Amino acid sequence: MKKKSRAQRQKELIDMLKTDPFYTDEELANLFGVSIQTIRLDRMSLNIPELRERVKLIAETETSKVKTLGVKEITGEIIDLSVGSLGISMLEITEDMIYSKTNTLRDTYIFSLANSLAMATIDAPKVIMRVANIKCLKLIEQKDRLIAKAEVYRKVDRKHYVKVIVNNKSQEQIFRGKFIFEELD
Amino acid sequence: MKKKSRAQRQKELIDMLKTDPFYTDEELANLFGVSIQTIRLDRMSLNIPELRERVKLIAETETSKVKTLGVKEITGEIIDLSVGSLGISMLEITEDMIYSKTNTLRDTYIFSLANSLAMATIDAPKVIMRVANIKCLKLIEQKDRLIAKAEVYRKVDRKHYVKVIVNNKSQEQIFRGKFIFEELD
Repeated sequence: MKKKSRAQRQKELIDMLKTDPFYTDEELANLFGVSIQTIRLDRMSLNIPELRERVKLIAETETSKVKTLGVKEITGEIIDLSVGSLGISMLEITEDMIYSKTNTLRDTYIFSLANSLAMATIDAPKVIMRVANIKCLKLIEQKDRLIAKAEVYRKVDRKHYVKVIVNNKSQEQIFRGKFIFEELD
Repeated sequence: MKKKSRAQRQKELIDMLKTDPFYTDEELANLFGVSIQTIRLDRMSLNIPELRERVKLIAETETSKVKTLGVKEITGEIIDLSVGSLGISMLEITEDMIYSKTNTLRDTYIFSLANSLAMATIDAPKVIMRVANIKCLKLIEQKDRLIAKAEVYRKVDRKHYVKVIVNNKSQEQIFRGKFIFEELD
């Protein structure tokens, strides 16, 4: 396969990151068949910050919309939020989040990711969790990057029903949960 | 009501703490109708450490029995453990565990208390959580002290079923959950 020209690659790079800003340099390097260094140089000449920075910039704006939680009470970075309907967040797994016996993600982190996103998506000043029904479908390893999606699918009186699914970076569903929150006065 | 003699009070104090080692000095003072200082002096003359110390001493022994988790992966202090059947743990709520908007305990802590006790109670070298169905029955405030009880109620092939209930210090049930864990190779 003939390599793309630099100009062509950079054009495609911009388009790809517009559609999905969450490619790592490594993933981009693999997709284009070039070295990570090349991708870094591309990003620099195009003034595109690295993944972590891109996420932070987006998360700052999205997190400021949250009504039910303080910023420090959110696990992961919220990267898209329509209060009252939909939320998306992302969690980079670090070593301290891993069980020593099984080398998988500690349950408390996947729960907090889903629970805090669900809560953040609710359009009310104060809510408390009443019910959570959750299923873990696949082992979550440290190399995974998690994307959680929450949807408020029902509201009855003071109760808000929220579904959350979490995918790993191979787009496999690894978790799903249903939560019921109740509004407080 | 005539006050008890010092000797009588100290005898009863020893009996009470044998039956339930988790009375605070304040609770004991109220029960005996004396000042907290008097209870502290009683404890000192009887060589009984304060609540926090009593819990730590017990927790060290009990935690050493846990097979499925590292010590740092446990939320709360395990105060009684029969691996394969029953576990009891305790959580002192601190200010950093409280939601800024509702002044109630953050969901992640009640989940972690129940989840880590359930996991600790299982008799297997490696397990992962597959299912959790949980209900929060009452608001949990900072002044509460939580006691969690876990029971392995079923084992089918490689699946361990664990029920957890959590009471506050007024003995009200504030949480219940059912967990399914699966053994790994």
